[in-house]
Amino acid sequence: MFKKILIANRGEIAMRVIRTAKEMGIKTVAVYSKADETSLHVRFADEAVCIGPAQSKDSYLKMANIIAAAEITDADAIHPGYGFLSENATFSKICQSHGIKFIGASPEHIDRMGDKANAKATMKEAGVPVVPGSEGLLDSYEQALEIAKEIKFPVMLKATAGGGGKGMRAVWKEEELLHAWESARQEAAAAFGNDGMYMEKLIEEPRHVEIQVAGDKFGKACHLSERDCSIQRRNQKLVEETPSPIMTDELRERMGTAAVKAAEYIGYEGVGTIEFLVDKHGDFYFMEMNTRIQVEHPITEQVTGFDLVREQIMLAAGEAISGKNYYPQMHSIECRINAEDPYSDFRPSPGMITSINIPGGNGVRVDTHVYAGYVIPPHYDSMIAKLITTAQTREEAIQKMKRALGEFYIEGIKTTIPFHLQLMDDPDFIAGNYTTKFMEDFNLDPSYAEMD
Amino acid sequence: MFKKILIANRGEIAMRVIRTAKEMGIKTVAVYSKADETSLHVRFADEAVCIGPAQSKDSYLKMANIIAAAEITDADAIHPGYGFLSENATFSKICQSHGIKFIGASPEHIDRMGDKANAKATMKEAGVPVVPGSEGLLDSYEQALEIAKEIKFPVMLKATAGGGGKGMRAVWKEEELLHAWESARQEAAAAFGNDGMYMEKLIEEPRHVEIQVAGDKFGKACHLSERDCSIQRRNQKLVEETPSPIMTDELRERMGTAAVKAAEYIGYEGVGTIEFLVDKHGDFYFMEMNTRIQVEHPITEQVTGFDLVREQIMLAAGEAISGKNYYPQMHSIECRINAEDPYSDFRPSPGMITSINIPGGNGVRVDTHVYAGYVIPPHYDSMIAKLITTAQTREEAIQKMKRALGEFYIEGIKTTIPFHLQLMDDPDFIAGNYTTKFMEDFNLDPSYAEMD
Repeated sequence: MFKKILIANRGEIAMRVIRTAKEMGIKTVAVYSKADETSLHVRFADEAVCIGPAQSKDSYLKMANIIAAAEITDADAIHPGYGFLSENATFSKICQSHGIKFIGASPEHIDRMGDKANAKATMKEAGVPVVPGSEGLLDSYEQALEIAKEIKFPVMLKATAGGGGKGMRAVWKEEELLHAWESARQEAAAAFGNDGMYMEKLIEEPRHVEIQVAGDKFGKACHLSERDCSIQRRNQKLVEETPSPIMTDELRERMGTAAVKAAEYIGYEGVGTIEFLVDKHGDFYFMEMNTRIQVEHPITEQVTGFDLVREQIMLAAGEAISGKNYYPQMHSIECRINAEDPYSDFRPSPGMITSINIPGGNGVRVDTHVYAGYVIPPHYDSMIAKLITTAQTREEAIQKMKRALGEFYIEGIKTTIPFHLQLMDDPDFIAGNYTTKFMEDFNLDPSYAEMD
Repeated sequence: MFKKILIANRGEIAMRVIRTAKEMGIKTVAVYSKADETSLHVRFADEAVCIGPAQSKDSYLKMANIIAAAEITDADAIHPGYGFLSENATFSKICQSHGIKFIGASPEHIDRMGDKANAKATMKEAGVPVVPGSEGLLDSYEQALEIAKEIKFPVMLKATAGGGGKGMRAVWKEEELLHAWESARQEAAAAFGNDGMYMEKLIEEPRHVEIQVAGDKFGKACHLSERDCSIQRRNQKLVEETPSPIMTDELRERMGTAAVKAAEYIGYEGVGTIEFLVDKHGDFYFMEMNTRIQVEHPITEQVTGFDLVREQIMLAAGEAISGKNYYPQMHSIECRINAEDPYSDFRPSPGMITSINIPGGNGVRVDTHVYAGYVIPPHYDSMIAKLITTAQTREEAIQKMKRALGEFYIEGIKTTIPFHLQLMDDPDFIAGNYTTKFMEDFNLDPSYAEMD
């Protein structure tokens, strides 16, 4: 087992890793930027090394400084957390060449899964469903029609140079295709000077449902069921839950089997997440694989009894997995508490937390690095806490979340707590009736700010 | 279901009840003494009523004021928490006669189980093992010998007027009995002017193991497995865990069955706890029944996924239980954090908490009513927080407790945190090798105070 782990990260995830390392009797080294001198991860690690100024590129992304900190402190492993260098193949390789174990994916796996086209091709090889479509650009309307018939309507026509919805058409039946083809090409030509088009199957009422996997160096993998992360705003997850409200035993079996197949096909080592889109028919399609711990991993821990960071460390140390899969025994929800003003377009709200009351009691977990008097620096991600509630049913977990949000007082800055309070009252959310488009039509009600 | 519950208590248990009531959509009324105006339970309840001055007898024990508060606020139920009026048959009856549901035992059950001799006789009738011994005083040495042979050596001779170990003899074999009989009687006569003696079986290496039960108004009961509460100091529990380190499936089955039999025999309604002593042979004996929620109930919640306060409320509202029993899926430990100085004979240490850091993260639960700036009044119980850790194995739960205790900073007062840190390092505790006598030989090591 490792003797000392350097955590190449900050904030709650640095705390998260320190905690598990301590529980395993492993020493920890924190690294920090000048802006993070007063952060809890610096206080709770056994050692701490300043690696540069506030800007990430000069500290948390500065590989040379991090490797130097590991060498100075004699750390035999580096945990990268999420973000920053966690999916950086170069960093994974540099750790390797310095004889420091990178608690994350190998350079090869990061490369293979980091490139979207590469990842999709690999998954197709492995027999995992990917969003069907044209391989590359369409030559002609006739080819478009042929592919549309093959992958079945509805389909999306997309301009290869596209963006902002321009040059994009949803096509529901054959009769509409010709008009869509022509108008989209014209639009794309006008907007981007490039009328190249490709086609994908249109995912109806898409939900983001991801499967947690773990693989060992003996080639075995298992899954720990799903997390539904469809509540997103501009591709940023806001709330996650497990089980997914749309999940059935049969769908979980199919998705879990696909995810395990994917992990075993590439010989994946460590914990990872396979993200899928699920449509209204219960068909699912590979989106991407994250080769690191996810922000939302605690909900899986809550319902399976697992410690995923411990699992990462054990797998990095060469342990074998049992090979059996893990299923949710409870229901768990996570709200990401961000230092943002939901009523000003979620603008970041850094500054000093003048006073704080953190909720507790039955079924409540809080992962945070902040405290009364802490100054949130403006340089990093605005997430300041993860509030996780767990209960026997989804309804109880929602009620518990409302109760816990009501106890969560953070003064001095704006937070997303009022947004979450409103969400927990939303009839569609309560019904489990939401897709990745949910936030597009969500109207913030300022009266929740007064409740907070 | 109830519309509004008044909580006739203070501190963490008042918070505990408020939380579950909120989650169930039930309004809450806090009552408080003048000394508790700034307590969190006052802040988080929907309404709060001051019921008198600081002294418990003038406030938390003042039935008339509490009933008046319930009537003024139109509460339809009262939750008494633990301590105070929770096992007061008169209060239970007064609630009844005012048409307010007492979320606790009926006056009859409180009476029957509150009197030790009565409770023991009832359990004997129900076929639950009780500590064997003489029924009342011994007439002669011959009778003493006869009973000792019947209940089998070792036995305890005890002066009926005894106390402080005087007039008490452990007798391991027949040859020792005559001498013990004579010397104990002489000692008792000299010390108390009363040489009346009785006999009980000596419980070898006793452990305090209690079974959580729940019963409904239809006469059905179930159990939720055990809690080991052997770590006690002067009969005050300090640390509890489940499963008990000595538990086997077979012993749990026997104890659980006995506890369910006991609850069903008396037609017990609500949640309750049957406390047993278990000896080194795996024989167990009824000690007493607590007809209320216990301080240590969270560890059972952690390993079964249950909410015992919700269960209390549901049963009080007339719900039926499923009848099946619940078994631990994880290991959970609770440390009671008291405002006491362990290095001055655990003397209470009231005063202002100037700063506090509450631990969090995976597997950590904290139930508390204190915060930075809170002044602990000198009038009440010194417990200020319950720190509960839960993991897949006992070893991991202990490691997690050490980690969480290390994060728990409370400044301005003395607490029992250093004691718990030392306990978690104790080889006998780690081995699960402890009895109710454990604390008698425990030597406090002041160096743990510096670690804190």
